[in-house]
Amino acid sequence: VAELDLITSIEAALERRSDRLVRWVGDDAAVVRARNFAVTSIDTIVEDVHFRRSTHSFADIGHKALAVALSDLGAMGAEPGEAYVAVVLPASVADSDALELVEAMDSLASRTGTTLAGGDVVSGPALMVTVTVTGWADDEDELVGRGGARPGDLVGVTGELGGSGAGLLLLQGLDVSLDEDTVAALERRHLRPAPRLAEGLALARAGVTAMIDVSDGVATDAEHVARRSGAELEVELARLPLAAGVEQAAEAAGQNPFELAATSGDDYELLFTAPPERREQIEGAAGVTWLGEVRAGSGAVLVGPAGEPVALRGYEHA
Amino acid sequence: VAELDLITSIEAALERRSDRLVRWVGDDAAVVRARNFAVTSIDTIVEDVHFRRSTHSFADIGHKALAVALSDLGAMGAEPGEAYVAVVLPASVADSDALELVEAMDSLASRTGTTLAGGDVVSGPALMVTVTVTGWADDEDELVGRGGARPGDLVGVTGELGGSGAGLLLLQGLDVSLDEDTVAALERRHLRPAPRLAEGLALARAGVTAMIDVSDGVATDAEHVARRSGAELEVELARLPLAAGVEQAAEAAGQNPFELAATSGDDYELLFTAPPERREQIEGAAGVTWLGEVRAGSGAVLVGPAGEPVALRGYEHA
Repeated sequence: VAELDLITSIEAALERRSDRLVRWVGDDAAVVRARNFAVTSIDTIVEDVHFRRSTHSFADIGHKALAVALSDLGAMGAEPGEAYVAVVLPASVADSDALELVEAMDSLASRTGTTLAGGDVVSGPALMVTVTVTGWADDEDELVGRGGARPGDLVGVTGELGGSGAGLLLLQGLDVSLDEDTVAALERRHLRPAPRLAEGLALARAGVTAMIDVSDGVATDAEHVARRSGAELEVELARLPLAAGVEQAAEAAGQNPFELAATSGDDYELLFTAPPERREQIEGAAGVTWLGEVRAGSGAVLVGPAGEPVALRGYEHA
Repeated sequence: VAELDLITSIEAALERRSDRLVRWVGDDAAVVRARNFAVTSIDTIVEDVHFRRSTHSFADIGHKALAVALSDLGAMGAEPGEAYVAVVLPASVADSDALELVEAMDSLASRTGTTLAGGDVVSGPALMVTVTVTGWADDEDELVGRGGARPGDLVGVTGELGGSGAGLLLLQGLDVSLDEDTVAALERRHLRPAPRLAEGLALARAGVTAMIDVSDGVATDAEHVARRSGAELEVELARLPLAAGVEQAAEAAGQNPFELAATSGDDYELLFTAPPERREQIEGAAGVTWLGEVRAGSGAVLVGPAGEPVALRGYEHA
């Protein structure tokens, strides 16, 4: 009965944000009036693998689960529509905690025009949240995959990198002299990642040829694009746009800040490729930094300050 | 790297079953050419809550995870399209076990015209599988919810009940004199539930007013329909269609067979309501048994052999 009460409370907390929703919570399945192309991704985050309750509040966990999934829609250039959420709750999570988790998720949903349209709540040995998001597009060419990078394209990235990794180091107790605001911004970067939905849509329209969200770190994510495109992606490490405080945090942790930025992951910026003649449209579409270029070949090549290749492995979400 | 190898093996095992799939595994999200209405449901099964490795093979677990999700599409009268699968793997599950799980899932997908279009594989403390299924419909009135039962409607159910509950008792070692084939059929009923997709489609077209899949047992599922419809569903226990062997298994376990059939759940038959004038069409659409009728009021009322109300609670998937 507690389970049913929780489900009732969750349903009461949710808001239908689209008149495209014909049926939602309370039926066996949600029914949505479709647009031409459905774009769907599924992601799971697991306690002590992707987050820790010692560093993340229940609201952080709910936010992160949805943000990670929406980030994939950003990388496709799709407009978000609905999210379907399965939560596994251990006995140590109170109903009020679970509700806090769902409310934070619904708050991010609200800001992104997403409706939480269905879900499942079950008990289990650890806290886990799986989110399936569906976005929509009217035309197939509005959407961007990982496989379109061509030799001669430029490689770019939105926003700043390394902030999430540095934030995690700070949350784990790293001692570094940084002002309070910078510390708060880095920690927030880790705890409340922002899916780049508007940027993804704008970049797709501006003519990017391939795109991926930076979840595992540029080192690994560039490799995914390279492999899928059958090309080589060259990224100059020194060009990576470091978030404020990353340099100091990396040094305090005994790491090279550019390597930290390339491998720590969870930044959820967008890494993309685009032909040089699209440079101006791309720069008008989003705040971007150019990192290198695409060549004939295979795999990601990270280049150090003296032009030497650097072997790095990104964080694997395993 | 093991993780990436496993994902590569999984991707190689999958088959694209629809030319509606524009992009699938290997991109940030799958892209599907939509029909007018998307029908989506999410379900999680958790080790030691919904299955045990002592009774279920990895293939059983994969089958069950997809069957449970597809069953919801059957209950809506939707045609299955795509499934998105998140698997949480503890260290005790070998890559070959995970592959066995996915292959069994893809085999059920194949038989139901479903494509496994995306997924996520992560590590965690226990084996868990979350499946989001999307089905499709061209018209809104092809679909059936839980809320349409009206006083005067008849209550019916497809197939046979109690088989899964009896099968579980047998798998747990219940000693009962039954022939081998009956035992095997009951155990299979529990381990390999069949989603009633064709039946759901046919019943929706034949004019049922409300429908739900029997996952928690008729006692609880009738309550869901009653609550959502604002009506009372009366179900005569003695009319429940018992699977062969349920009577003997229930007696050996010291239970009333009709109560077992009403509460043990996991049968994944379809419980529905329909106006009496649709009786013939309904009987032509699927093998059904009539259980009682809908009255003004609220909640499910289970009636015993002497016409007395019987208080029963179905199995809760909590």
